[in-house]
Amino acid sequence: MNNYNDSPHEECGIFGISLAKKQAAAGIVYHGLYALQHRGQESCGIIVNHSGLFTAKKDLGLVSEVFTPEVLSSMPEGRMAVGHVRYATTGAARRANCQPLEVNHLKGRLALAHNGNLSNAAELRRELELSGAIFHTTSDTETIAYLITRERLRQPSIEEAVEQTMYRIEGAYSLVLMSAQKLIAVRDPHGFRPLCYGTLSSGEGFVVASESCALDAVGARFVRDLLPGEMLVFTRDRVESRQLHCGRCPRTSCSFEYIYFARPDSVLDGRSVHEARKEAGRLLWKRCPAEADLCIGAPDSGLDAALGYSEASGISYEIGLVKNKYIGRTFIAPGQENRIDQVRIKLNPVRSVVEGKRIVLVDDSIVRGTTSRRLIRILKEAGAKEIHMRISSPPFRGPCFYGTDIDSKEHLIATGRNLEEMAAYIGADSLGFLVPEDLRVMAGTGCLCDACFTEYYPTAVPEDAGKSRFELPLQDPELPPQEKETL
Amino acid sequence: MNNYNDSPHEECGIFGISLAKKQAAAGIVYHGLYALQHRGQESCGIIVNHSGLFTAKKDLGLVSEVFTPEVLSSMPEGRMAVGHVRYATTGAARRANCQPLEVNHLKGRLALAHNGNLSNAAELRRELELSGAIFHTTSDTETIAYLITRERLRQPSIEEAVEQTMYRIEGAYSLVLMSAQKLIAVRDPHGFRPLCYGTLSSGEGFVVASESCALDAVGARFVRDLLPGEMLVFTRDRVESRQLHCGRCPRTSCSFEYIYFARPDSVLDGRSVHEARKEAGRLLWKRCPAEADLCIGAPDSGLDAALGYSEASGISYEIGLVKNKYIGRTFIAPGQENRIDQVRIKLNPVRSVVEGKRIVLVDDSIVRGTTSRRLIRILKEAGAKEIHMRISSPPFRGPCFYGTDIDSKEHLIATGRNLEEMAAYIGADSLGFLVPEDLRVMAGTGCLCDACFTEYYPTAVPEDAGKSRFELPLQDPELPPQEKETL
Amino acid sequence: MNNYNDSPHEECGIFGISLAKKQAAAGIVYHGLYALQHRGQESCGIIVNHSGLFTAKKDLGLVSEVFTPEVLSSMPEGRMAVGHVRYATTGAARRANCQPLEVNHLKGRLALAHNGNLSNAAELRRELELSGAIFHTTSDTETIAYLITRERLRQPSIEEAVEQTMYRIEGAYSLVLMSAQKLIAVRDPHGFRPLCYGTLSSGEGFVVASESCALDAVGARFVRDLLPGEMLVFTRDRVESRQLHCGRCPRTSCSFEYIYFARPDSVLDGRSVHEARKEAGRLLWKRCPAEADLCIGAPDSGLDAALGYSEASGISYEIGLVKNKYIGRTFIAPGQENRIDQVRIKLNPVRSVVEGKRIVLVDDSIVRGTTSRRLIRILKEAGAKEIHMRISSPPFRGPCFYGTDIDSKEHLIATGRNLEEMAAYIGADSLGFLVPEDLRVMAGTGCLCDACFTEYYPTAVPEDAGKSRFELPLQDPELPPQEKETL
Amino acid sequence: MNNYNDSPHEECGIFGISLAKKQAAAGIVYHGLYALQHRGQESCGIIVNHSGLFTAKKDLGLVSEVFTPEVLSSMPEGRMAVGHVRYATTGAARRANCQPLEVNHLKGRLALAHNGNLSNAAELRRELELSGAIFHTTSDTETIAYLITRERLRQPSIEEAVEQTMYRIEGAYSLVLMSAQKLIAVRDPHGFRPLCYGTLSSGEGFVVASESCALDAVGARFVRDLLPGEMLVFTRDRVESRQLHCGRCPRTSCSFEYIYFARPDSVLDGRSVHEARKEAGRLLWKRCPAEADLCIGAPDSGLDAALGYSEASGISYEIGLVKNKYIGRTFIAPGQENRIDQVRIKLNPVRSVVEGKRIVLVDDSIVRGTTSRRLIRILKEAGAKEIHMRISSPPFRGPCFYGTDIDSKEHLIATGRNLEEMAAYIGADSLGFLVPEDLRVMAGTGCLCDACFTEYYPTAVPEDAGKSRFELPLQDPELPPQEKETL
Repeated sequence: MNNYNDSPHEECGIFGISLAKKQAAAGIVYHGLYALQHRGQESCGIIVNHSGLFTAKKDLGLVSEVFTPEVLSSMPEGRMAVGHVRYATTGAARRANCQPLEVNHLKGRLALAHNGNLSNAAELRRELELSGAIFHTTSDTETIAYLITRERLRQPSIEEAVEQTMYRIEGAYSLVLMSAQKLIAVRDPHGFRPLCYGTLSSGEGFVVASESCALDAVGARFVRDLLPGEMLVFTRDRVESRQLHCGRCPRTSCSFEYIYFARPDSVLDGRSVHEARKEAGRLLWKRCPAEADLCIGAPDSGLDAALGYSEASGISYEIGLVKNKYIGRTFIAPGQENRIDQVRIKLNPVRSVVEGKRIVLVDDSIVRGTTSRRLIRILKEAGAKEIHMRISSPPFRGPCFYGTDIDSKEHLIATGRNLEEMAAYIGADSLGFLVPEDLRVMAGTGCLCDACFTEYYPTAVPEDAGKSRFELPLQDPELPPQEKETL
Repeated sequence: MNNYNDSPHEECGIFGISLAKKQAAAGIVYHGLYALQHRGQESCGIIVNHSGLFTAKKDLGLVSEVFTPEVLSSMPEGRMAVGHVRYATTGAARRANCQPLEVNHLKGRLALAHNGNLSNAAELRRELELSGAIFHTTSDTETIAYLITRERLRQPSIEEAVEQTMYRIEGAYSLVLMSAQKLIAVRDPHGFRPLCYGTLSSGEGFVVASESCALDAVGARFVRDLLPGEMLVFTRDRVESRQLHCGRCPRTSCSFEYIYFARPDSVLDGRSVHEARKEAGRLLWKRCPAEADLCIGAPDSGLDAALGYSEASGISYEIGLVKNKYIGRTFIAPGQENRIDQVRIKLNPVRSVVEGKRIVLVDDSIVRGTTSRRLIRILKEAGAKEIHMRISSPPFRGPCFYGTDIDSKEHLIATGRNLEEMAAYIGADSLGFLVPEDLRVMAGTGCLCDACFTEYYPTAVPEDAGKSRFELPLQDPELPPQEKETL
Repeated sequence: MNNYNDSPHEECGIFGISLAKKQAAAGIVYHGLYALQHRGQESCGIIVNHSGLFTAKKDLGLVSEVFTPEVLSSMPEGRMAVGHVRYATTGAARRANCQPLEVNHLKGRLALAHNGNLSNAAELRRELELSGAIFHTTSDTETIAYLITRERLRQPSIEEAVEQTMYRIEGAYSLVLMSAQKLIAVRDPHGFRPLCYGTLSSGEGFVVASESCALDAVGARFVRDLLPGEMLVFTRDRVESRQLHCGRCPRTSCSFEYIYFARPDSVLDGRSVHEARKEAGRLLWKRCPAEADLCIGAPDSGLDAALGYSEASGISYEIGLVKNKYIGRTFIAPGQENRIDQVRIKLNPVRSVVEGKRIVLVDDSIVRGTTSRRLIRILKEAGAKEIHMRISSPPFRGPCFYGTDIDSKEHLIATGRNLEEMAAYIGADSLGFLVPEDLRVMAGTGCLCDACFTEYYPTAVPEDAGKSRFELPLQDPELPPQEKETL
Repeated sequence: MNNYNDSPHEECGIFGISLAKKQAAAGIVYHGLYALQHRGQESCGIIVNHSGLFTAKKDLGLVSEVFTPEVLSSMPEGRMAVGHVRYATTGAARRANCQPLEVNHLKGRLALAHNGNLSNAAELRRELELSGAIFHTTSDTETIAYLITRERLRQPSIEEAVEQTMYRIEGAYSLVLMSAQKLIAVRDPHGFRPLCYGTLSSGEGFVVASESCALDAVGARFVRDLLPGEMLVFTRDRVESRQLHCGRCPRTSCSFEYIYFARPDSVLDGRSVHEARKEAGRLLWKRCPAEADLCIGAPDSGLDAALGYSEASGISYEIGLVKNKYIGRTFIAPGQENRIDQVRIKLNPVRSVVEGKRIVLVDDSIVRGTTSRRLIRILKEAGAKEIHMRISSPPFRGPCFYGTDIDSKEHLIATGRNLEEMAAYIGADSLGFLVPEDLRVMAGTGCLCDACFTEYYPTAVPEDAGKSRFELPLQDPELPPQEKETL
């Protein structure tokens, strides 16, 4: 379920278009970002390229809040544009960190929209600082921008500069870049984060997006996913592909995109997200069957897997929890903590459905377990006789260094608890998870990253990878130590 | 489905509390209104009674927009409070028309929260104007306020004044009233609109709400629905009931509350809304079977009936359409009308589910048919082989004078079309509706108003009942006709 | 000086136009209200009459804040419009109390913009309530609206209804009324508050305004002030005058309009405000001469009188205090109370001017004396040798019941202090005031109200005239006394 | 007069504090910026140094709009802070360009507040870009930040890095810099822009500000102006001075600071601004006497000089024009261009003063002359017999490259017109200016920059110095020229 305090957070969605001729490009990006809103709700932005001039609008807030009709109509027409929605993983939720990032350099302008996290960002940043770089933001994206623009001084083209940069950065990155003349899309050699492209009808232009649902939203025809390590360069009427020579990197796409992040109507690397989730539900039945009267999903992200579980088990699928669709980021609970259960405000059971029943409750994942605990309590208060909780993923074991914000290890429900203890903690009559191998069946491929479930990381791991690693107090070396202030 | 341009609109939700002792009453009402937000998204308001002084906050916008943490914390504690969410049926969406209405009169203050529409409002208003009344708003609620306060001059108590007023007003009204000392709830003799009450735990107080889901939201225990023609008077620790003697009125609860308006987790007059909708789906299968591979519901309001249809028919239930949960009132489509299908922005098909399949598509109702037509087109573009549209209500035939905003008759799909023509208009391979008698089975009672489906109205019908009947240009009789301006 | 905590407050400014043909009337009213902004900064509003339909925009805030270009361009064209700026004297600063007030009654619509305070408002309100009236606001204006619309039921025309109402209301009122067809301006028989009218060039229309500076602002030609007790009725191309027969009322125009309220570029009842203030300065020299090197005025309202004092005395006029022109209503002083003098933020001395000098400091009035005390301290800290404070009005002695918000009697500097004690309190080397008789010379007429200086009131005085008299807790008679809550 | 379309604009005001111990530093800066608001109304910002962590708040708008009580109370306590108010001269009015600028570099953090314009900015920027720098803003300040942080890699301390940077940048700059441990103030070797410092009472700390009026506002004691080419380094309890060895630079302080920019209550380089302006008025009488009845100043900036002219000439000083003090940046004039004179909305004549009189009208400067022409017309329409316009500065002849935004040469009234033609253009009966030599007497020093009056520039002049020189479309060298788009 989509609880704001007790589930992993996706970091970003990116979108870009290259059109055959100038038009209201911002409006198209707006629709694309709307479809990607689930990938980031903290800030959003669009930069339009109007004959080489960039016009940007970026701010904290949802796409519908930032891009009012007035704002959209004030943006110029253009032949290219990039857009971004963001949930802050590295760098706090501040206006300066909103994307796409725009920089000016000797050879022109560059706009960058980035999804992912570099695992060698700290080293690269230090190296840049040593050579005189200054940083305005605390995000990895500025590091990438620096590397590209510096390479650009040495390389004959922006493509070469991007390619050379790709040999230096490590970790997860799907990027859309826009120069005065070109739109460039890049997916990291591991293929951690999704990225695909399509064509607008009748040769009007090209669209790049994090997920295929954003192509659907703007009426574009899906062409294909970018390959890991691939760069696409879009010009007016053609697209060129370059493949990086980094054969050492095995493909390791993020398994959690299928489990929770992506929209069920998207197709990632050839696999329908909805089908993957249903399959996860079926596997869950095989792995952890239950004797029950009903099978219900925790809205919205547990519904697909619940349907699969029901199908495989023959246990009736039901709608047992109703979600308040007006709950937004702004929901608050002023001084009523004791009386009013915040989970109940978001999810209310259908008493006539659950009363006296043995229920399989399917959810996509558990982080701390507090939400599951309250959900089970609510269902039992509504009369449910038994709750058999089934999770369509393995338990979280460690952090993600590739762009997912998972709670710190000491808070994870699986830390220091065996299955029975976890079930007891959340108040379930039984509890079942998938095992990591099941994810390969679910995703239809073995090329997956499952590090958050297994702690086997496909890249070297940074030493200090906290979210605010660039926001700690820095110290000037000017003053003798005894003058330094304590926090 | 919850489309803002092509479905009937509910008018209002009301909420009131009477507590044993002063506390942060606004916070409780806030949670209650949050749960009732689906009944009205244009404006909302709360009035807190702080030792007889009223503090009001009302504005255009959603509950979460108007009642920010700052606003809530600035409201005083109180022993009583009333709240309202509104979709304008009579009276335009202007700030002056926001509710609850607050008036001062000789005997004190009165706050009113009203759900419904009077069918004799125009006559009553004229009569009041003839006796010197002036009106600040264009809503029926001000008329009710006038009648009550005038009666109050003649009657020994506010209860008597309300009762006398009930003998004069006709049509649909569920009301929560608050004087300096009392909270009063009233339901009209026909019982058109729902109203129920409950108790907060450990004798802390009473709660009145349009739907039981709002009682759940504040942790209150449901006691019962108000009877048609019943008045409840809440004081600190007890509740008194009065029954009006208006035996001529048969109970005629709104059938559309079950079909679309109410939340599925609410129980209205003893009938679970979710169960009613599932039953409607089952009846729909009996009334209009289809040969198909899958049964899908139009999110969100078609899902329950689709589940019932699937259950009765044995056709597999599937998730074939994904709704963008960030679509709000502010969604706009700047200059992309031709390219971008607005329905597709809200609902996107899951291609892997629908491709090559014969599909039963269940929705709750059809108004003009434009949304259904686009939905069917989208599904067919995604590869659906056949679409058998099934509607879990009868076709709309006429207007509602009791608080539902149905499109004007000439726009209704059923006006001038037979079933085949309707199916052809929306592009469905077949189309099926319930018949009015089915609604009795669905609701578990024969005491229903089905006037919008049958044009048999349970009250006298007003002559001119347009939404803006009080907003036409008025003419001063002072000037000779030849000086009058033309519009 | 214009200090927000330590000076009397003006209540309102009103403005109306009647045009020969439809045009962007709101824009003209906007300019007029801009010129009247000094008469009220809490809220403002404009109602445009568009062929009998009224479109209103009213809100808390300055004219420039409420009437953004978007708001203005969204208002329809019209042949008439009224506007209002408000500082709340009766009725708190709430949105519901914003003016112009708009009411609907049997014979049509009425908009009212009101400047002044009724002295018999409480009696009238009670009488209306007894006959069934309900009140939405706490302002006198709603009482006037009720009386007019009730009379309208009996009278053949709106003019007659207004005239009959004028026989019933007592106190200060300048009114602009707008019906569907007519614009009507009224000044009370005492002529407490100013009101004048003019013509737009080439017979295009008529303008009514509180002060002549607003006629200048819209390019209108001043015709004349309304007479006390006069009603003007404007129609397309002519204006008709009616004089009320209330001969018992002597004219008693507010003397404080000349001293402080009105803009110096206005002419009230034939007397230039700037000239009146200069004259007050000259009289002040005669009444209380001083031996000094320089004469400076407290910006902005003391400047004109300082110039007069300088002229009469031969003491050099200087600019000794500089006002921060960006100080607005929003100025706040977070947690710096001890260090930072709020008066100094607003007014800073010119050290080179004041250092070592004996200074006459002229201000228009003193309420509590706290501002004067800090001003004198600031000047002395900047090196001034002596400060001889001169006030171009007599000391305040009592409240005003006609629309001016003077501090309560116990706070007035003159309460319980003789001249020496007052001088000592503010730290002045000497202090001088005008006497009430001087005001007649200043204003060029004996027909003045000087009640706040003399406590001789020209009308009967209300028993309870507090600002919030309608906002005290009311009690319902329903409950026995022992159940009543205490505040 | 302070007209927003027809007068030169000042660019910035800067403010910094270094305190002995942590306290609510943002509140002190807020008061300082309030006093400097006249130096820039487009944007403002404060950065607080909280134990080495920087907390910034910057936005478009006035100090009172950006720094609401909520914002101020949300800022942490600190021992240092810098603030800035801005009118954009280089770099458009965009949020990204708001100051103070904050950058992160290898050795820590740096915040910069800058007043002035570099004359060699373009060369420096190109050089930086060649070495790999990327730019987020279009302002000179980012160039300075780069130079300092790059020097910092080579130099042992931040002071050395700033000093080395000062040898490279040319033009006008007053700077306040803040590192994690130090507050540094710098004034360019020409001393173009003012900068002074003072102490808070009882050794609590130090304050740096553009003008002394800001020291007064926070209750600080003025110590002295910075010398041209001086750097001050503030630590907890002491201040150290360094003097740059750039003897080739003659001191050339901006003369227009005395004429118009600075507040009259400030003292710049030992000269009271008010006294300088009065002196300018006296010189103006000597240079261009007039036979007249009255002398009036154009509010507010012409008032001091008018008083000097009156004093020298014996012609009576009068208040002949009243300024609407509510005119702000938001004033607009919707569709009333023909009827309503925008100058009249801001300034209204006092008819009783000007009627039938021969008037000397003193203003500080003329740019295009359109405002003067309308002002004279307004005074003549109010009955003035003769207008003798006197300007307390010489005519503008050329652009300023040091931070003042003067209209382009072809628009200046003095371009292509002799004195008679200028007088005729504005409709004056006579017109008189000061000559450049008078400015030396006015300012009490010969070390002045008068380049905008004489076109003798004290530094090399940039080739392309347009305001938006960094905002033209840039071109990527990737594509062959024939593919480049035309604007």
